[in-house]
Amino acid sequence: MTRVPDSELVLIPGGTLITATPEAGRALAFAISRHTIHNLQPDLDVLKEGRPKYSTNPDSLIAASQVVAIEFQTIASANNYWKK
Amino acid sequence: MTRVPDSELVLIPGGTLITATPEAGRALAFAISRHTIHNLQPDLDVLKEGRPKYSTNPDSLIAASQVVAIEFQTIASANNYWKK
Amino acid sequence: MTRVPDSELVLIPGGTLITATPEAGRALAFAISRHTIHNLQPDLDVLKEGRPKYSTNPDSLIAASQVVAIEFQTIASANNYWKK
Amino acid sequence: MTRVPDSELVLIPGGTLITATPEAGRALAFAISRHTIHNLQPDLDVLKEGRPKYSTNPDSLIAASQVVAIEFQTIASANNYWKK
Amino acid sequence: MTRVPDSELVLIPGGTLITATPEAGRALAFAISRHTIHNLQPDLDVLKEGRPKYSTNPDSLIAASQVVAIEFQTIASANNYWKK
Amino acid sequence: MTRVPDSELVLIPGGTLITATPEAGRALAFAISRHTIHNLQPDLDVLKEGRPKYSTNPDSLIAASQVVAIEFQTIASANNYWKK
Repeated sequence: MTRVPDSELVLIPGGTLITATPEAGRALAFAISRHTIHNLQPDLDVLKEGRPKYSTNPDSLIAASQVVAIEFQTIASANNYWKK
Repeated sequence: MTRVPDSELVLIPGGTLITATPEAGRALAFAISRHTIHNLQPDLDVLKEGRPKYSTNPDSLIAASQVVAIEFQTIASANNYWKK
Repeated sequence: MTRVPDSELVLIPGGTLITATPEAGRALAFAISRHTIHNLQPDLDVLKEGRPKYSTNPDSLIAASQVVAIEFQTIASANNYWKK
Repeated sequence: MTRVPDSELVLIPGGTLITATPEAGRALAFAISRHTIHNLQPDLDVLKEGRPKYSTNPDSLIAASQVVAIEFQTIASANNYWKK
Repeated sequence: MTRVPDSELVLIPGGTLITATPEAGRALAFAISRHTIHNLQPDLDVLKEGRPKYSTNPDSLIAASQVVAIEFQTIASANNYWKK
Repeated sequence: MTRVPDSELVLIPGGTLITATPEAGRALAFAISRHTIHNLQPDLDVLKEGRPKYSTNPDSLIAASQVVAIEFQTIASANNYWKK
């Protein structure tokens, strides 16, 4: 088994939910979602095999985008929606 | 591979969650949802192939509408529900 | 293609999340959910073809009702739950 | 078509989210969930036909219970969790 | 039909969302989830028949655990997260 | 039946939602999610049999990651997002 590199297994990349901008907050939501998958399945070969299946299936993409949306809710709230 | 144009890959189009009206906030929820899909799958050909599958399937449409609903929760809260 | 009429494509019918009563707030949740579907799929013929499929399938009805529930969370919060 | 009686189509039975107890709040979550289904599909014969399908399918029951959970979140928040 | 005992049909066992500890709050989330299923399907024989199907299916277990997570959100908030 | 060890059945490992860091909070979300599954299905053999099924299925992994996201929402809120 080829293991996902350690840097891809950090649960909260950067160690904080606070970001400078909504764009950075959204990128963090993507990163957290991806690292969650990596922790549930750290075998790179299995992940690579799964990629074409889910990334060409609209329903899988919709499901994945929902997870990002939920993570973003948490991050946006943590940043008080980046209001000034 | 024909890549989705860069403008369609911005995670938070406009760079802010704040909008003037509920209608604009809802439009932002749609845009964020769509751009999320684009980032998960930036190959335009794959996206175009998936479109007829999901857009004629009631269950896929319901799932997609749920993602928009979740994104809108975040945006509506960010705007304090556009109360005056 | 027969396009859904423009009035059915408004994202937030009435332009506000504020309603006089819980009943009206719930009706708005239904309307927003329906208009979301219309925007994702504005072809009336496709929508009409999908209707019998999803409306006789308990799982589809449950999924649709979940979307209404999520939209209502936002609307109820916007109205401070119609407390006096 | 035998139509669901009007009383079963009220979106928010009782017209308020406020209840005296958590038990009554939970009952309201069930009622709202059921009435949502009735509004999406008001044909009693279709509903009766769907009942044995979903009520003997664990996945459908889990999905239905999730909708009740989401409705209850809203109602519990409206009642400030019935704290004294 | 063998009916689930009345004690298993109480919607909010104990009649309150307030618990002494997070552990007790989580147990309440499990109980509420289970009682919801019982109310949707009070026939003990059907429930017993469904048990082996869902409890050996990872996707069903994940779906069930999501419902518990949502119920727990409500209970945790009701208890102000058991902060001292 | 080989039963999951008792330590894996604690509903809230550590007995609190409060953690020192976002990373620890996320780890708690994973632990709570896993222990929920263990409580729903405490037979270790069944769990081991299910593991290869869900862990190689992208849709199952996405669903599991959504549960972690929901648990994390609760934990992050309990910790006021670890703001200083």
